[in-house]
Amino acid sequence: MTNLFSTPAQTDFDLWVKLKQARIEAVLDQILPSAQTLPTDLHSAMRYSILGGGKRVRALLCYAAAELYCPQSSSTNITITDIAACALELIHAYSLVHDDMPCMDNDDLRRGKPSCHKQYDDATALLVGDALQSLAFSILSKTDLTNNAQQQLLMLNLLANASGSQGMAGGQAIDLAAVGKPLTQDKLETMHRLKTGALIEVAVLLGANSAIYSANPNNKDSLALRVFAGNIGLAFQVVDDILDVEADSNTLGKTTGKDAENNKPTYVTLLGLMQAKAYAQQLHTEALLALTPFSEQAQRLQQLANFIMNRSF
Amino acid sequence: MTNLFSTPAQTDFDLWVKLKQARIEAVLDQILPSAQTLPTDLHSAMRYSILGGGKRVRALLCYAAAELYCPQSSSTNITITDIAACALELIHAYSLVHDDMPCMDNDDLRRGKPSCHKQYDDATALLVGDALQSLAFSILSKTDLTNNAQQQLLMLNLLANASGSQGMAGGQAIDLAAVGKPLTQDKLETMHRLKTGALIEVAVLLGANSAIYSANPNNKDSLALRVFAGNIGLAFQVVDDILDVEADSNTLGKTTGKDAENNKPTYVTLLGLMQAKAYAQQLHTEALLALTPFSEQAQRLQQLANFIMNRSF
Repeated sequence: MTNLFSTPAQTDFDLWVKLKQARIEAVLDQILPSAQTLPTDLHSAMRYSILGGGKRVRALLCYAAAELYCPQSSSTNITITDIAACALELIHAYSLVHDDMPCMDNDDLRRGKPSCHKQYDDATALLVGDALQSLAFSILSKTDLTNNAQQQLLMLNLLANASGSQGMAGGQAIDLAAVGKPLTQDKLETMHRLKTGALIEVAVLLGANSAIYSANPNNKDSLALRVFAGNIGLAFQVVDDILDVEADSNTLGKTTGKDAENNKPTYVTLLGLMQAKAYAQQLHTEALLALTPFSEQAQRLQQLANFIMNRSF
Repeated sequence: MTNLFSTPAQTDFDLWVKLKQARIEAVLDQILPSAQTLPTDLHSAMRYSILGGGKRVRALLCYAAAELYCPQSSSTNITITDIAACALELIHAYSLVHDDMPCMDNDDLRRGKPSCHKQYDDATALLVGDALQSLAFSILSKTDLTNNAQQQLLMLNLLANASGSQGMAGGQAIDLAAVGKPLTQDKLETMHRLKTGALIEVAVLLGANSAIYSANPNNKDSLALRVFAGNIGLAFQVVDDILDVEADSNTLGKTTGKDAENNKPTYVTLLGLMQAKAYAQQLHTEALLALTPFSEQAQRLQQLANFIMNRSF
């Protein structure tokens, strides 16, 4: 993405993204059982499903939120922020594996490769998702990870709630029930606030909590971060709906046009393309506004908000 | 089960089982989101899948192990032992819901009722399992549950590891890969030690840890409990294989004869019926032997070991 006309800040951000993406890949590689560990088929399918791809938006948000409170080093020690970022990506990857299955979205392509159930089989995909979820809670509950067990518990609790029936899984259930039915913008928003928003919000909160684990972020900070994350999470989804119409499968790494084909309500079908773009822009503006109290420490979060808006994949 | 010839100890045990089963049912009922909470379909399917049935063997083992260290009250306060017992039953229930799905064992009957995917649909069953798993980690990570966050983290970590790719989900993967193939007794044992044994072992450990949460059980105790749980977990499975041949579907509340139909290796196909019974007896004896150091506090665990051996359902 770097070119001759990039500003120094943009170049710096592009590099930061690449370094963090490489870091999360390396930590995930180390945390996942090797493909030689029994049961080898399951472990190789788990590695297939999470390594080697993805924008890592949730991990990036986690790292960027940690930088609000504490400069992040590039040391080779695995930190609690790394583990939180991995746990988020494990939960996200499990949801994609299950979401792609024939009984859900029946999608053959993910991150430019055959989806897990196509590469292996349905039963393996089911178990891969189940085991990735367990692994997220396993790595974040290690008793020697921090010297603040109370803070670790809080982070586990935030993650579990964001993943469950009143978070991500609940959003999937609303999504399923909505297929083929007209939805109001309010209902579509509720669905997305759970389905993708809950995990994006918790990514920001876990990042912040991981960096100041001697105390919670104060209430004012937490509220501002929730507003930021809520808006950016929704903007992410609106952009997703726009890309599903405008991008091609090769660029996106997943099948495009699926929403229309599956008769799923989207922001584009609800608002039209122009209005959907304007709405994404409005959410983006509100997200940035919420960061005002943090001044320059919020630079990474601002850049990430721009990145989420301007992505073409 | 009580009759004129029951000993007082047996009558007392039967009552204890009924009281604990009723208690776990009541606590689960309270912990699960109501069927009126959005998304209502998902919550009613979750409640359908875990309430109103099951022997609650894992919860009973958890309560019995807690009694090794601390007499359990029947107070109306929900204790950390109750929460650990619920978390175990949530993980167990999620595994049954996913295991019954068409891409796994394709079983239409569970606990005497249509299994979750038959009562609802495959996509709902997938999400029910996913959300039940999240809920287990959510309830056990509540920050106001105990005043010993370190001990709670340890319990979460034990549960997550027992559930994941090197525990229960890993055992399922080995089970799947074994269909139609001859297995040695060693390999069958490895599969069961993961598939059912890991969660049964952790039920005993969580119970013990919940009762002495000012300190870990000492190493000698932990080792003895692992030996007890390992043997009783395997005995449970051997008895399951025997019941799959000998019991009828009505008594068992699930389809019998499925193992042979699915060409699955079992202790009965491997050893024959008589030898399988002798092996269950041997495991039972070894389990009881491991309890020797605990003297009379281990009465409930001993009785549960007998209960697991003599059950007809």
